[in-house]
Amino acid sequence: MNTIGEIFRLTTFGESHGAAIGGVIDGCPSGLKIDQQLIKKTLSRRATGTTSSDSHRRESDEVEFLSGLLDGVTLGTPIAFIVRNTDARPEDYADLKEVFRPSHADFTYQQKYGIRDWRGGGRASARTTVPVVVAGAIANQILAQHGIEIHTEVKSIAGETNPKRIEALLRQCRDEGDTVGGIVKGSINGLPAGLGEPMFDKFQACLAKAMFSIPAVKGFEYGDGFAMASMRGSEANDQMVFEENGSVKFLTNHSGGVQGGITNGEEVCFNVAFKPIPTLGRGDRHDVCALPRATVIIEAMAALVSVDALLMQSH
Amino acid sequence: MNTIGEIFRLTTFGESHGAAIGGVIDGCPSGLKIDQQLIKKTLSRRATGTTSSDSHRRESDEVEFLSGLLDGVTLGTPIAFIVRNTDARPEDYADLKEVFRPSHADFTYQQKYGIRDWRGGGRASARTTVPVVVAGAIANQILAQHGIEIHTEVKSIAGETNPKRIEALLRQCRDEGDTVGGIVKGSINGLPAGLGEPMFDKFQACLAKAMFSIPAVKGFEYGDGFAMASMRGSEANDQMVFEENGSVKFLTNHSGGVQGGITNGEEVCFNVAFKPIPTLGRGDRHDVCALPRATVIIEAMAALVSVDALLMQSH
Amino acid sequence: MNTIGEIFRLTTFGESHGAAIGGVIDGCPSGLKIDQQLIKKTLSRRATGTTSSDSHRRESDEVEFLSGLLDGVTLGTPIAFIVRNTDARPEDYADLKEVFRPSHADFTYQQKYGIRDWRGGGRASARTTVPVVVAGAIANQILAQHGIEIHTEVKSIAGETNPKRIEALLRQCRDEGDTVGGIVKGSINGLPAGLGEPMFDKFQACLAKAMFSIPAVKGFEYGDGFAMASMRGSEANDQMVFEENGSVKFLTNHSGGVQGGITNGEEVCFNVAFKPIPTLGRGDRHDVCALPRATVIIEAMAALVSVDALLMQSH
Amino acid sequence: MNTIGEIFRLTTFGESHGAAIGGVIDGCPSGLKIDQQLIKKTLSRRATGTTSSDSHRRESDEVEFLSGLLDGVTLGTPIAFIVRNTDARPEDYADLKEVFRPSHADFTYQQKYGIRDWRGGGRASARTTVPVVVAGAIANQILAQHGIEIHTEVKSIAGETNPKRIEALLRQCRDEGDTVGGIVKGSINGLPAGLGEPMFDKFQACLAKAMFSIPAVKGFEYGDGFAMASMRGSEANDQMVFEENGSVKFLTNHSGGVQGGITNGEEVCFNVAFKPIPTLGRGDRHDVCALPRATVIIEAMAALVSVDALLMQSH
Repeated sequence: MNTIGEIFRLTTFGESHGAAIGGVIDGCPSGLKIDQQLIKKTLSRRATGTTSSDSHRRESDEVEFLSGLLDGVTLGTPIAFIVRNTDARPEDYADLKEVFRPSHADFTYQQKYGIRDWRGGGRASARTTVPVVVAGAIANQILAQHGIEIHTEVKSIAGETNPKRIEALLRQCRDEGDTVGGIVKGSINGLPAGLGEPMFDKFQACLAKAMFSIPAVKGFEYGDGFAMASMRGSEANDQMVFEENGSVKFLTNHSGGVQGGITNGEEVCFNVAFKPIPTLGRGDRHDVCALPRATVIIEAMAALVSVDALLMQSH
Repeated sequence: MNTIGEIFRLTTFGESHGAAIGGVIDGCPSGLKIDQQLIKKTLSRRATGTTSSDSHRRESDEVEFLSGLLDGVTLGTPIAFIVRNTDARPEDYADLKEVFRPSHADFTYQQKYGIRDWRGGGRASARTTVPVVVAGAIANQILAQHGIEIHTEVKSIAGETNPKRIEALLRQCRDEGDTVGGIVKGSINGLPAGLGEPMFDKFQACLAKAMFSIPAVKGFEYGDGFAMASMRGSEANDQMVFEENGSVKFLTNHSGGVQGGITNGEEVCFNVAFKPIPTLGRGDRHDVCALPRATVIIEAMAALVSVDALLMQSH
Repeated sequence: MNTIGEIFRLTTFGESHGAAIGGVIDGCPSGLKIDQQLIKKTLSRRATGTTSSDSHRRESDEVEFLSGLLDGVTLGTPIAFIVRNTDARPEDYADLKEVFRPSHADFTYQQKYGIRDWRGGGRASARTTVPVVVAGAIANQILAQHGIEIHTEVKSIAGETNPKRIEALLRQCRDEGDTVGGIVKGSINGLPAGLGEPMFDKFQACLAKAMFSIPAVKGFEYGDGFAMASMRGSEANDQMVFEENGSVKFLTNHSGGVQGGITNGEEVCFNVAFKPIPTLGRGDRHDVCALPRATVIIEAMAALVSVDALLMQSH
Repeated sequence: MNTIGEIFRLTTFGESHGAAIGGVIDGCPSGLKIDQQLIKKTLSRRATGTTSSDSHRRESDEVEFLSGLLDGVTLGTPIAFIVRNTDARPEDYADLKEVFRPSHADFTYQQKYGIRDWRGGGRASARTTVPVVVAGAIANQILAQHGIEIHTEVKSIAGETNPKRIEALLRQCRDEGDTVGGIVKGSINGLPAGLGEPMFDKFQACLAKAMFSIPAVKGFEYGDGFAMASMRGSEANDQMVFEENGSVKFLTNHSGGVQGGITNGEEVCFNVAFKPIPTLGRGDRHDVCALPRATVIIEAMAALVSVDALLMQSH
């Protein structure tokens, strides 16, 4: 329920304004020297975002590793890590105790559990993606050893693709106390052919599930995605040619690197749609737009899915 | 890997032209009188589709239940069922033994397993959705007892929404030996608030995973989906009001019935995008368009996800 | 719930007097030529047992494979198989509809499900071990490729170890309409060091769980087992020596081939205690003693656990 | 792999001399006021044991809860907790870096992972049972609400059952630098009929697996256990009678409260055999006998299995 993955399994915990958030990675291969700088750097990319859509909460996001490492090298045993919530100000939220904020999870948590942590969204806060980013950075180290690279970029914000117009838009939203959503484009390069399981654990199905577990995600498509619904088969098919050395080359990649749920060795490309942040209001410590930081989370999720498929296939 | 669900778990098996396809449902509540007519009717909806996009393979799709029932009533033990492949004509595919068809799974299966069933797509065939439809019909019976209803309709085919123009388009495609994709719209009504798990098993994440496990699906969105990426927060939020009897009413449903991964009691609505069928050619036994029959599979998948979330929550 | 294994996963189904019993193996490596003769032979060992403890039910135990094979070779997709219940005589049990037999599962199934299959024990019948034996034979083929061998023998029946006295005892029991239990000794040879997971999935823990899932098993011990509870540490420790070629040799094997939940390369040896068959009565079609056939089931369970640990480790 | 349970799931982490050990409980019902005093008391029972078999390591075993609680009440979200290793003295073990201690897990961990934490047994240390005890105490709170009670006692040490002789024996062992094993007897009272799953997740199978995941356990039996292997069916069967109010009463309990893998409402009783502690030597900080503290761990494991079966059944 709070676990993702079959072989490389991440279990996360923590509420936005509790003592700490963190995770346990079970199934990480032994002998990996953890790159603490990479984790720090990735977390700081997540924390900052761009200037104008910046959250004002200031967390040092110091990661403490509690287990699974000896001199910074993975033992093969569970890797537990925590990040203390140092800038937690539950008192800021005291007046939310009795209120269900629109388009937040306040109401649904109350319905599900009969109790909820009203302090800044509790378990539904975007802060719960911090452990995902930490684990994703470790997954990325393993992927790098296999020549696999993940890349993301903001494709559009509020429908705009021009950086200058986006910047103006964000400034305007901040002034008006409004928020915007957008689309992030992602790609995974270097995946070997053969990853993914044929029926319910297709590569794209696991990727989609991971993306929809990110707060505020409303849509996911891969390859040519929704646009393929308007194509003819004759223009959508990806022709293969055998090269002189016997290897296979695809002339196009409408499929997005996956066929029948299994990777074909081409780039896996996808888009993720985010709704606007539901918390409105001027000058507070919340974001105008989640996208800049969302790219880091998408990379982490893509890394977790990829490394799990890779380890599953190599058994 | 070939299993979906945590409590109501379906494991499927079978290749397109093997002896049989089928499934095992583990975790179905005891005491349910299976509605064999409903299953028959649902399978026949799947088999037929509309006239012009009809597959020419003729399967009686006779379901044989092997276990888990006493006088047609569920025992609480695993329900196994099989459907024999009676119109299997592997010889039709003999010349595919050495060929990788474009945008099919032939190549990827070969890469993954070092062997593949070349007879009509093997495990990658759309025929493997038959057990999903059977299990979905049983899931639907349970949902009906809780007042939960699932509905689907073809929203567009090749970008067209007008039935008359769609009909003409399909005829033209059949003549040209081409194929088309489209979008199916689905909805789940009557779900109680509180279903879904907060982090990686959010209701929409499980729904997305199930949809992307359907062959040819390239995109999924829920609520206002990709359109929300262009909205402002001020127009995207769903306001709640408390009614006189203390219950909650939402004035809008941009969220699509889920907040923070947990259902809020509103309709869960979503769209699923299908690419065109990759097998081209005139007058053969293949579809021009998978959508009419795809609606049945989407309903089944939505039912499996809903009943699993329902049973998970009631523990 | 009706599934065993993490990578090599067996799901079974079927009631004693339903249409069929069977199983689905998910995660079997591709490219394995199934040895149908081995399966037949193993099933016949299970069916026969010894003369005097023979069950009178006559089942041909014909295995039909429905999926996962092409020309008898595994495809990597789920392998489904069924065995029809041809000598099912539910009418023999009609008077059990209203009766809870002592030390049977009639009462507990009724309590759990509110319904039960009264025909010959239903899902609680020892006949449900047939699919385990089939899957175990396939697992054994994989183990053989790795030089791993499983062996079992009846160690004692009703406390007797002398074959002649056992034979006399069984004859007497048959005459008196009574039944007996006993102990089966098992061993797994050739397991590489390093199998098993450190905490809750220790090798011996998985083995114990598998053994206790066999009907009538009341005790399990491995290595020197219960006898170690009376030993001193100074006599129970297994000393290691390094051989000239650098490899490790253990001077004793009190530990039974496992330390800290992980195999050490020595023989894994264990004992399994069976209670007497609860169905009493003269001249009917039931066993006097389950042990001769139980050896086959123990071998199958040990094979399933071993192959799963082997595949888990090699990822 | 480091997780136990299906609904009430405990994942543990930590090495003996790392920064901390701990666990994450996922699936604990919401609204439970955690009894911190009970946890403290149970941990202290684990830490102390009896005088003469006492470990000299001094850990305060202070539990810090990081998530899942609001004002000490469970939120339904993951409950993470840690216990710092304050008396960790890795330098004591520096000379073990290059040594495989007999009957320890040093060698097998090295074989499995190619690396090991040589500091006091690392992940294989009995200290890793601390998180099990914490989670078990929480599970016990839930069980108590359902009138379910777990009890354990030391049945024998080194074959002795007389307390006075045991005391003398332990003193002698300490003087000689030797160690002893023994048998713990456990019972679970108040379990409703109907818990456990029929095939591979039988109640006793899950219980056995949990017990064999405790370090040093070599045998497990339930009901009359190994003794039943010498009984006749006519003396082993548990007769049932219907009482005047229609409820069922068992005249005997040879079965140990389980039939066909499902609880029958009677006491579940069992024995667990422990080998002697493998670390020998005089005056160091290690135990002469693990049993006194092992009772606490057995209670915790039994509680985890019971609460999981209870929650699984109530769905």
